Amino acid sequence: MGEFELIRHYFAAAPCAQGGEGVALGIGDDCALLSVAAGEQLAISTDTLVAGVHFPAVCDPFLLGQRSLAVAASDLAAMGATPIGFTLALTLPDVQADWLQAYARGLNQMAQACRLSLIGGDTTRGPLSLTMTVFGRVPQGLALTRSGARAGDLLCVGAELGNAAGALPLVLAERQAEPAVAEPLLAHYWSPSPQFALGQALRGKATSALDISDGLLADCGHIAKASQVALQVELERLPVSDALQALLGREGARQAALAGGDDYVLAFTLPEAQLAPLQAAGWPVHVIGRVASGTGVSLVDGQGRDITPVTRGYQHFREQP
Amino acid sequence: MGEFELIRHYFAAAPCAQGGEGVALGIGDDCALLSVAAGEQLAISTDTLVAGVHFPAVCDPFLLGQRSLAVAASDLAAMGATPIGFTLALTLPDVQADWLQAYARGLNQMAQACRLSLIGGDTTRGPLSLTMTVFGRVPQGLALTRSGARAGDLLCVGAELGNAAGALPLVLAERQAEPAVAEPLLAHYWSPSPQFALGQALRGKATSALDISDGLLADCGHIAKASQVALQVELERLPVSDALQALLGREGARQAALAGGDDYVLAFTLPEAQLAPLQAAGWPVHVIGRVASGTGVSLVDGQGRDITPVTRGYQHFREQP
Repeated sequence: MGEFELIRHYFAAAPCAQGGEGVALGIGDDCALLSVAAGEQLAISTDTLVAGVHFPAVCDPFLLGQRSLAVAASDLAAMGATPIGFTLALTLPDVQADWLQAYARGLNQMAQACRLSLIGGDTTRGPLSLTMTVFGRVPQGLALTRSGARAGDLLCVGAELGNAAGALPLVLAERQAEPAVAEPLLAHYWSPSPQFALGQALRGKATSALDISDGLLADCGHIAKASQVALQVELERLPVSDALQALLGREGARQAALAGGDDYVLAFTLPEAQLAPLQAAGWPVHVIGRVASGTGVSLVDGQGRDITPVTRGYQHFREQP
Repeated sequence: MGEFELIRHYFAAAPCAQGGEGVALGIGDDCALLSVAAGEQLAISTDTLVAGVHFPAVCDPFLLGQRSLAVAASDLAAMGATPIGFTLALTLPDVQADWLQAYARGLNQMAQACRLSLIGGDTTRGPLSLTMTVFGRVPQGLALTRSGARAGDLLCVGAELGNAAGALPLVLAERQAEPAVAEPLLAHYWSPSPQFALGQALRGKATSALDISDGLLADCGHIAKASQVALQVELERLPVSDALQALLGREGARQAALAGGDDYVLAFTLPEAQLAPLQAAGWPVHVIGRVASGTGVSLVDGQGRDITPVTRGYQHFREQP
């Protein structure tokens, strides 16, 4: 048996690869088979992470295992989908048992936390990269898309913003911080928590949604474009963490919240009448602005004055990777 | 708009990305949405191709576009699935418009030939590699797996074997041949035809199936193991093409048929009573051996004598990549 075939057997033996709800046939045949209940649709998303581009070429493989799956799975949360499973296409320059075991442990931990079954994949030799394709189910007609925002809706996010951007200089060892500051930021970067439960709670309520991966302003631009509306983000309403403010100061934290990538927090639009019941039920819904008629994304102050030009410089963050 | 975002728009505008049967939501949101009819299951497979490992680093991007999708889609044929769609995770070192356009044309041509809709993906910067995840539908309980072969069944293949292995020295420019020999072999390598129709015709008839990607003997080993049976391959029954024999001679052609990879031809087991009706209906069913009780794969001559030791040397081809 070749070493890459051994890796396949190794992943196939992971707890997260032993099947789960909706998985009719898992790893080991030409295809996996998923069962989809009548009245449900299958949600699918693919993400690639390349070493040196999307994560440091030298990093903790356990943390990478967690993060690589969470990043992909967050797209399911953004559609309001219930997780089913994922495939892993893993390209490795060579086989290092320690690395693989730690990576698989991190992957497995996140998979079980997300209730995602590993249903298949491919393992090949080449420069380190990971492609995850994730699968979820959602009742027909209730998937949260980017295209339904209407003028008058509230613009909301599901958690504090900018933590991952704050963590990045720590991840890259360009900067240091005391543990009370560094730890929560690094945890957010390496082990994001896809907001599945919030996404499901927003079914039939939010008019649009996505997960923030490219930065709030850039991603709001995607909603504005798909929905053919304007979005106004109110600078002073941006929720930021104490740790982020301690690291970057108030202004720096706001900049990270506006333009930083990798948050994997839901952004969504909501008819005003939906707000109170969701908040009363304990859902983390932070209102950060409004939907208006028009196009594009603008930044406003507490009095509704347009202060967008100040932040034009952020727009280069829209480019990816 | 960044150049990688431009690429995404470019693929999103391809004819194969305009939706199709079963595609409720295509490219452009956090997830694609597929509809699966009641009584059907979704078949899923992922394949990665890395430049310099699975295809020459310098090659015709149009041909690569065709081949990269066909290789992945062949797994759907092997399950007896009807194609629905695919995602493409494309990692590129830089953006070369000519290369991308040719690649996309080849991809689109194969996608339309296979009736596969491009439903999503990711485009990232890094060393050239391609990960395709393909989706098909199959009536519940009728997917062709590797695990149902029974002693007494016939072992069959769906087309001539070894053509891609014969083409490889031509692809790598290690060898030349006259056009009448080279062209059919190169066509088989660069533009394999996944046997979807045959796979669907075998639903409820074949007891096991897969597509030959690692070489006949290695892949028969997968059926033998999954089904807990022995497979006997009769050397003189192996179907090989005139072009392959012209290039490699009779013995060389048989070796290519036994051990060569990349055929993407179906191998399957069939109760004897199923053979005549399938052949009468015009399906390309070539009997190449038998299923017996026991384990492993053996090679036999026309008199049923075990001649396996002669070919032991092939086993190193089982290792991948």
